[in-house]
Formats: sequence, structure tokens, C-alpha cells
Amino acid sequence: MPVFLNTSAADFEQGFRAMLSAKREDSSDVNDAVTAIIRDVRARGDLALCELTARFDRLQLTPATLRFTPEEIAAEVARVTPEDRAALMLAAERIRAYHARQMPEDASWTDPEGATLGWRWSAVSAAGLYVPGGQAAYPSSVLMNAIPARVAGVERLVICVPTPDGIINPLVLLAAQLSGVDEIYRIGGAQAVAAMAYGTDTIAPVDKITGPGNAYVAAAKRQVFGRVGIDMIAGPSEVLVIADGDQNPDWLAWDLLAQAEHDADAQSILITTDPAMAQAVAAAVDRIIPTLDRAAIAGASWRDYGTLIVVRDLAEAAALSNRIAPEHLELCVDDPEGLAAQCIHAGAIFLGAHTPEAVGDYVSGPNHVLPTARSARFSSGLSVMDFVKRTTMARLTPGALAAIGPAAVRLAASEGLQAHGASVQARLGTLNERLTE
Amino acid sequence: MPVFLNTSAADFEQGFRAMLSAKREDSSDVNDAVTAIIRDVRARGDLALCELTARFDRLQLTPATLRFTPEEIAAEVARVTPEDRAALMLAAERIRAYHARQMPEDASWTDPEGATLGWRWSAVSAAGLYVPGGQAAYPSSVLMNAIPARVAGVERLVICVPTPDGIINPLVLLAAQLSGVDEIYRIGGAQAVAAMAYGTDTIAPVDKITGPGNAYVAAAKRQVFGRVGIDMIAGPSEVLVIADGDQNPDWLAWDLLAQAEHDADAQSILITTDPAMAQAVAAAVDRIIPTLDRAAIAGASWRDYGTLIVVRDLAEAAALSNRIAPEHLELCVDDPEGLAAQCIHAGAIFLGAHTPEAVGDYVSGPNHVLPTARSARFSSGLSVMDFVKRTTMARLTPGALAAIGPAAVRLAASEGLQAHGASVQARLGTLNERLTE
Repeated sequence: MPVFLNTSAADFEQGFRAMLSAKREDSSDVNDAVTAIIRDVRARGDLALCELTARFDRLQLTPATLRFTPEEIAAEVARVTPEDRAALMLAAERIRAYHARQMPEDASWTDPEGATLGWRWSAVSAAGLYVPGGQAAYPSSVLMNAIPARVAGVERLVICVPTPDGIINPLVLLAAQLSGVDEIYRIGGAQAVAAMAYGTDTIAPVDKITGPGNAYVAAAKRQVFGRVGIDMIAGPSEVLVIADGDQNPDWLAWDLLAQAEHDADAQSILITTDPAMAQAVAAAVDRIIPTLDRAAIAGASWRDYGTLIVVRDLAEAAALSNRIAPEHLELCVDDPEGLAAQCIHAGAIFLGAHTPEAVGDYVSGPNHVLPTARSARFSSGLSVMDFVKRTTMARLTPGALAAIGPAAVRLAASEGLQAHGASVQARLGTLNERLTE
Repeated sequence: MPVFLNTSAADFEQGFRAMLSAKREDSSDVNDAVTAIIRDVRARGDLALCELTARFDRLQLTPATLRFTPEEIAAEVARVTPEDRAALMLAAERIRAYHARQMPEDASWTDPEGATLGWRWSAVSAAGLYVPGGQAAYPSSVLMNAIPARVAGVERLVICVPTPDGIINPLVLLAAQLSGVDEIYRIGGAQAVAAMAYGTDTIAPVDKITGPGNAYVAAAKRQVFGRVGIDMIAGPSEVLVIADGDQNPDWLAWDLLAQAEHDADAQSILITTDPAMAQAVAAAVDRIIPTLDRAAIAGASWRDYGTLIVVRDLAEAAALSNRIAPEHLELCVDDPEGLAAQCIHAGAIFLGAHTPEAVGDYVSGPNHVLPTARSARFSSGLSVMDFVKRTTMARLTPGALAAIGPAAVRLAASEGLQAHGASVQARLGTLNERLTE
């Protein structure tokens, strides 16, 4: 049964805190297994990849067949229906247009002292995208990871996707093609992450690895972090819908269930000012669940983590939303922009009754890789920014060094860093000769 | 002895690879100890903090004395000389002016389909800055961490700084005051990181933790990552100086030694087109080292990791620089801007002979917290961006949903996510009633 809470009830705070602190993920420890796999791939390279793929994916590969050939890709892609292709192309174009606006700009200026300062952005040279296999192989996620990388200017874009028993989703390959991916390898798990981080004879290493994955993939990304960059360690997904009393309960129920059907660990929360709306939505959810193909998953998520909260007013709703810091926030109210201004911590906000979260998963344009489990307090969704890095620039004239250098000399002295100060003094001609005798 | 390499030599590639892959850090495993400390702080809060501080810092505290009082801060700050205060204020002002330009802008636009899209930036609510104690307590690092947070709009800014035997550097407190820090606690190590991540009765939790620290602090940051955001796991520092034959060898020697004096694990590299310059700089370094206060540290760094490379031309220098991806890159050449355009991977670039790296450590304005150990390939120095997060926004009109919604429905079907599609169809009035019966 989902949790019903009411901010007017005496035990509200207790119930809300319990909801916030509920652990939705089984953090089973796979670290040792992952460490062994990474070590194996570093030591034996392609050979290890082929053996591990035979063991985990029941697929016999050689170094020569690790990578999809252009002919194999073309043959799979030819199986995609024109309707699916058109939908994927619309999504790709909209995602590209949105992310193109994210490119940050270089800056340079000269200050009154004569110091020319600024920064310069440049793309990561090579990026690797992990794509889960089997049921979780979402072509939309390929677009959401690969297009920002391409927009950023990444030169070499690699995908690793496991193909258990040799099965691949043709839409995944089409999404890779539409995004401009350069290389696609039929490997998965921690071994794929290790191969992208350290390289093998067949797979050149990349600089950054992004993309979702299971516990092994997540543990592998955490372990190779530092050797390469990673995007984030994603947890189970969640949606918060804030609604007034003037909404269609069925629409809200579908939105809650669109989240719940992802994963039994997903969480769907409704906050409403209208107790009758809470009841109507709960009834609609109960009515719909048995009709779903994924009734077991959605039902488990709703039963274990579904939450309905009745609040006195929308200001209270915004305050609770900020404590939840939801990955997805739907504002089905009269003035969604006004309410959004009060909702500070959220990965993505969907404004108004005609913006269901599902359009954001596919075609609205913003990224669907978003911070989960309250991490919207401190992090952002995937973007072009994940595939660029900033170099700061400074050029001082002799006059600028004369103006600001003495302060550096003094601070260096206070920190006991003599050579720091001397490197400035030598240029200013104020270096005590004793130091160099 | 430092390594001498020449790209014209037959064994150059071998020597260069050995230099690149040299491990400069002892990755002693402190993870278990750190896990135990974090668990203790979570379980016993302030009491654990006091006990651990008594044990590690030989300092008796109570929950009431964990935090510096305004009077204590004022008394310490009064000990700072006017000259040191003026230098710190100059640095703070320049760092603030540089970082103020980094504030990213919100965006909003409406596309032809009627979708209003964009994003909004907002500050992290509370940030915690770790400041090492003892010899590594650098007031400049307080400015470099705290000022970007304040510029970003962080509401609550906390510092934890250990005070072994009760000793505190007054300049650290003045730097905190100049940066607008709200709370300063006299605790350090993994226990300070745990307190900031999870909170105690006395210390409210923060959302993001930044700042340098020893192996315990680094391990604690890695362990609490996800619960809170962290900046990066910094490794030993490095500088690469690229010089033509027309430079003052003493200036370059001081620059190399300013890096080497930080830490025996630091690395200083000179790349030059002029073999005579390499010899002259090496001779100057050898002459200066014995005169340094920190001769033992700088000498060890230079002996173990110092490297001089002679190249045929500056294009070759840029190519090697890109493989090194240095934290600090000094371009002491005739046309530093031209060379900088070829040096793609670097944390910070210092252009021309009058921009020694040391001015960047203190007063030029850009941040001195920079990506080390080749991570400039995929990451950037600390900035305002580390203290803000982006919320993506979307609002569709009914017409926009009608235009792009059907593609979402099709993609949802291809991914087997029925409720995703239905949440769109319900709004479009195209939902097959069978689904809800």
C-alpha cells in the first residue's frame, strides 16, 4: 500500500522523514568481483574480454569480432520500421537542438593592472558510452548520452553494449548511427568499463565514461574514476507530481505509473492541496495497475514506495519538494512558473498539465539522464558540460607583475613557500641574492 | 637525478612513457579505518568528534567548543600583520572579480512546435570546505574554495580545520572572514568529512564538500560521494614549463622549484627547443636547491620526478604537453597565445615569461585548485560551476504535445514502457480505452 501523509496530521514529520530516508536500493557488494575483472582486463586485454563475454553473455567472440562492422550495423538498422526511425530522428533532432544551446563560451579580458585573464573550453578527446543490454537497452538513452558528446566536439565516441546470446536491439544501433558514434563493441559489464578506461589491443582507451548500468557497471565506474572521468552513479529513478484540485486524476495516475513501471525500486510521489484529488489519483492508479504489461514491476514500486501527500497550500508543497530534491518534478497547477520559482532543487521540471514527464524521456529536448536520490541538491543532469573542460588562462605584463606580484611574494612567505616568492622576485629584480649563492 | 630526454633519441618514446606512467603517490589503503570513523560519527555524533579530536589532534573539546566563537576568531585575526592582511585582501578581491564572471546564465526559448524550453541555475544551499591543519594550512586555499561558493550564492558556508595541539594559523581565519564563511569548526580528518556529510547535533549537514586533504580526507570524500557532492580527489601537483632558447634560466629554475617545494611527490617538467637551455636550467636548479628552506622536499621531488625534454620544435612540445595534460602549463616562448592554441589539455595556462605560476597560486584571479595527474583530459579546476546546479525546464502547449507527443508514444512502445506512452495518449485523447478497463 502506498503511504498517505497529510501535513496537518501530528505524525506528518515522522512519516515524511521515514519516506525520505527509505533505502530503495540493495547495495549488494560487488566491489571485489569488479576489482578482479578490471585487473584481468588490464592484464590480458582482448583475451579477457572474450572469455568474460563467453561466460556472462553466452557469446563466443574473438578480438576480430569484438566490434560491430559497418555491414552488421547496416543489416540490423535495416530492420527498423519507418515509423520507429522517424520517431527516433525527431527525438535526435530535438535533443541536438536543445544541447547545442549549452555550449559554454570562452572569455578573455584585460584588467586595469594589465593582467589578461580568461578561460577556454575544449572537448574531451574520446568518450565511451555504456549501454545496458537486454530489457534495459533503451535507444533513447543512447541519444541522450551520445548527442551531447557530439555537440561538445568529442572526436572519438565509443559505445559498449552487451549482446546476451548475440541479441541486439536494432534501434540501439540506429540511435548510435544517428548520434554519430564511431565504434560499437559487443561487450558489457565491468569488463567493458575496464576496456574503455585502460584500453586493450583492439579498443583504445577513452577519457570519459558515461551511461547507466547495473551494480557491476556502477562499481566499475566508481573504481576507474580518476583514471577517466565518469558522469554519475545513478540510482533508482523518481518523480514528484505537485497538483492542485483542478486536474485530471487519470493523467496524474499515468504519470506516476510511467515512473513506477521502470523499476520496482522507482518512486512516485503525489503532493496535492486537495484531499479528494489524492483519493481520486490513488483510485486511478489501483484501477490501471492490473492492466499494465509491467503490472508486477509498477505494482511493487507503488506498493513499496508510492506516496501521496496532502498539503495546506502550494508553498508547503514547494518546501517539501525542496526536501525531496526530486529527479523529475511535474507541476500540474494553475501557475506552474510561479511554483517552479519556489522549487529550488530538482533535476528537471515539467510545467503544466500538458507536459507529462514521458515527453522529457524522449522528445522534448532536455536530457533524461538526471540526478537521482536527492542528489539534485548538488548535481545536474547530463549535458554538453560533461564533455568539455575549462582551461584557465593568464598573461601578465611586466607592469602587471610589478603591481600584483609583491602580494604573491608576501603570501608565499606566510605559507613558507620560498621558491614561490622567489619566482616572482627574480622577475621583479627584487630577489635577495643571498638566496642564490 | 632528473630525467633528460630528447625526442631525437631512439629510446625517447620508452623514456617518455615511463615518465608518464610513474606512480607518484603511495596509495596506502586507509579505507577500512575511514569507514569505521564515518560509522562512529554517524552513530555517536558530537561525542565521536570530541573523542577523535582528542586522539588525533591532542585537543580536548566539548560539543560547545567545537565551533570557533566570533571572539576567538577576532582575537586570532588581530594577530595578522597589516602587510599580510593587505596581501590577502588583494588576493580575495582579484579571485572574487575573476569568479564573478563565471556565473552561468539561465535560458528560455519557445520552439516552433510551441514547447518552451530552457534551464535555470541555482546555488547549492550549504557547502563545507575542508582546510588541512598544520604545515599544509594555506590561507590561499581557503580563498580559492570559499570565494567561488560565495559568488555562486551558497547560503551557508562551513569550514572544518583541524587545530593540532590547539594551534591555528590566524591567516586561515582571516581568509575565512574575508570570504564570508559562516561557521568554522576545529575538527579535521575523516571525522570532519563525516560530520559535514551526515551532520551531528552541533553541525548541520552540507550538500557539497570541497577542499584538499590527506589520504584519510580523500578516502572519506570518496566514501561520502553520492550522499553529498565532492569536488575532486586531488593528487600530487605538477608543472610543465615550455621554453624556447631565449629565456632566463634562473626564472625557469625558480618556477620548477616552486612546484617541487610543495611536496616530494610533486613533479616539475621542462620542455625546451634548446639543449643549452635545458642544461642551463638544470644547473640553476642544482645551484638553488641547497639554498632552499625546503631543500629536502624540493630536492627529492626534483631527483625522483624532475624531467627535462629537448624537442625539435614547439609543435612537438605541444604534442607532448597534450599527452602529459599538465595541471599547470607555463609557456615561456615568443608567441605564447599561438602555442596555447595547440595545448588542448591543461588545468591552467600561464602565458609569457612574466606570468610565473606562483602568481596563479595567489593573486592573478583564476582558481589554484586544478586537475592533477592527467585528469585535465576530462576535468576542470574548481569554479563557481562546482557550487551551482542546473534544472532543465519544459512547458508544452496542447499543440506542442500534439506535434511531438506521438513520437514519444512510438518510442515508449519500442522500449516496452506502456504507461509512458499512455501518459501522453491520455492527454491527446488517443488512449485505447482497453488499457484502462
